[in-house]
Amino acid sequence: MAGKLIIIGGAEDKERDCEVLKEVAGAAGGGRGRIVIITTATQNPRPAAKKYMKIFQRLGVGDVRAVEIESRQDASGPKALDALKGTTCVFFTGGDQLRITSILGGTAMGGALKELFERGLVIAGTSAGASAVSSTMIVTGDEEDSPRKCTVKMAPGLDLLDGCVIDQHFAQRGRIGRLMCAVAQNPHVLGIGIDEDTAAVIDEGRLKVSGSGAVTVVDGSTLSFSNVSETRPDQPLALVGMTIHVLPRGYGFDLIQRKPIYFKPQEDENENTGEKDIQGQEHLQSQPGNKA
Amino acid sequence: MAGKLIIIGGAEDKERDCEVLKEVAGAAGGGRGRIVIITTATQNPRPAAKKYMKIFQRLGVGDVRAVEIESRQDASGPKALDALKGTTCVFFTGGDQLRITSILGGTAMGGALKELFERGLVIAGTSAGASAVSSTMIVTGDEEDSPRKCTVKMAPGLDLLDGCVIDQHFAQRGRIGRLMCAVAQNPHVLGIGIDEDTAAVIDEGRLKVSGSGAVTVVDGSTLSFSNVSETRPDQPLALVGMTIHVLPRGYGFDLIQRKPIYFKPQEDENENTGEKDIQGQEHLQSQPGNKA
Repeated sequence: MAGKLIIIGGAEDKERDCEVLKEVAGAAGGGRGRIVIITTATQNPRPAAKKYMKIFQRLGVGDVRAVEIESRQDASGPKALDALKGTTCVFFTGGDQLRITSILGGTAMGGALKELFERGLVIAGTSAGASAVSSTMIVTGDEEDSPRKCTVKMAPGLDLLDGCVIDQHFAQRGRIGRLMCAVAQNPHVLGIGIDEDTAAVIDEGRLKVSGSGAVTVVDGSTLSFSNVSETRPDQPLALVGMTIHVLPRGYGFDLIQRKPIYFKPQEDENENTGEKDIQGQEHLQSQPGNKA
Repeated sequence: MAGKLIIIGGAEDKERDCEVLKEVAGAAGGGRGRIVIITTATQNPRPAAKKYMKIFQRLGVGDVRAVEIESRQDASGPKALDALKGTTCVFFTGGDQLRITSILGGTAMGGALKELFERGLVIAGTSAGASAVSSTMIVTGDEEDSPRKCTVKMAPGLDLLDGCVIDQHFAQRGRIGRLMCAVAQNPHVLGIGIDEDTAAVIDEGRLKVSGSGAVTVVDGSTLSFSNVSETRPDQPLALVGMTIHVLPRGYGFDLIQRKPIYFKPQEDENENTGEKDIQGQEHLQSQPGNKA
């Protein structure tokens, strides 16, 4: 059974509630967990490693270490595979997602990550580390502008999550235009935009939102028309009928059925936390505390 | 028959193609037109008046004048009503939309504008001047953030356009979150977000896009759920099933039927310009130049 993915939108709280990083610490096994921090995305690995080691130790993770993988040689050597032994969770720091894929893709470490993930390894990543996990990833693109075709550049990702394209620092950097453009290029793909200090926790095809912002899902299955294949590179796109869901903490998404989920909060000890599919009126009436 | 509305997203080109301002000049009647510039939105009216008078004169408008309406007394006095006599087009400059409504609303000038509009007066506005024309207008709200209920403040607008809420500087200021929030509060209302250097030209219930950016339509009729009435003011909203259309030049929207429109470009003299409803595959095959 494949492991859990914890995809973080960047700038996660490291000093107050630390909700998102606690999610990682918990998934890693807490006191019995071992987190390996991979700093490949950044060209400044030591401060990043130090920062996350301190936080995860403070959050009670039993064993936290960092491994410097700066080149394909590093990713092919014994140091890399040794680092993964006995690891319960790998954590990718931020930087440039193209560094992650161009350095790890096709190496022994890249292969081992995928295999261990399929056997239950938790993989977490923030910012660039979030974007890199899907089959196709966004490398770069204009922000804060209407969708324009050629400003979104995509490339193959680490292939740990099928059928989705991920973007991060989402609301804060005005990236919905580029995510809609990515989805328009193949509307079969689901766009997942993650705000800062927010995580999408993905397990067995179901996504759950954690943190203070929202996860925006861009669903192109209702897209009745786009001119993405006809426009010149700098022209704004026409997109007709894109469906958008904005999901904060307490909500989630069934990636297979493409339906939002509501996670009922646990109101007393005897009550089970449950989840409900959001089905309009029936759901609203059954929500705790809701007016009939 | 009601007049035309030309709603501009701000920062319209004033030096090169001037496509959007030419749209206004043309609608005003060109050499036989009379444009009155109303600078009420800004606390610095004279430079704004001068700027637009120069441009419209350069674009060939026969008669261009500005009227300073700085107070409700101004808007109630004879100067205001005299200024509107014989006018073919009123142009609202940018600034603060609340100045427009709080100064003009309920005065003789406010009433005259509505009446003349219903008899064919063209009303154009940029930036704040665009937001002010609808029944309910956005006053302010957070930008570049996930939708949050209480950061969107709305107030009654000039009531020249029913059933829509307008936002401007749209892509450039990351305002889709606040527009989705406004629509969630009453999903009957259509959200219309206009980018910089872009205009929505609205006539007889049909919107046509002009300029270099896009008009984003946020249609809440498919919204199956939102928690807008339950959340605390600063909590991010959950929105399920919002429909988004992004429409650049050459496209439009039927505001009554809530359907996008494609305006077929005129390819030769004998061919009529036409418009088509965008209906997915049938439309794609009938589009000029499109691969079958």
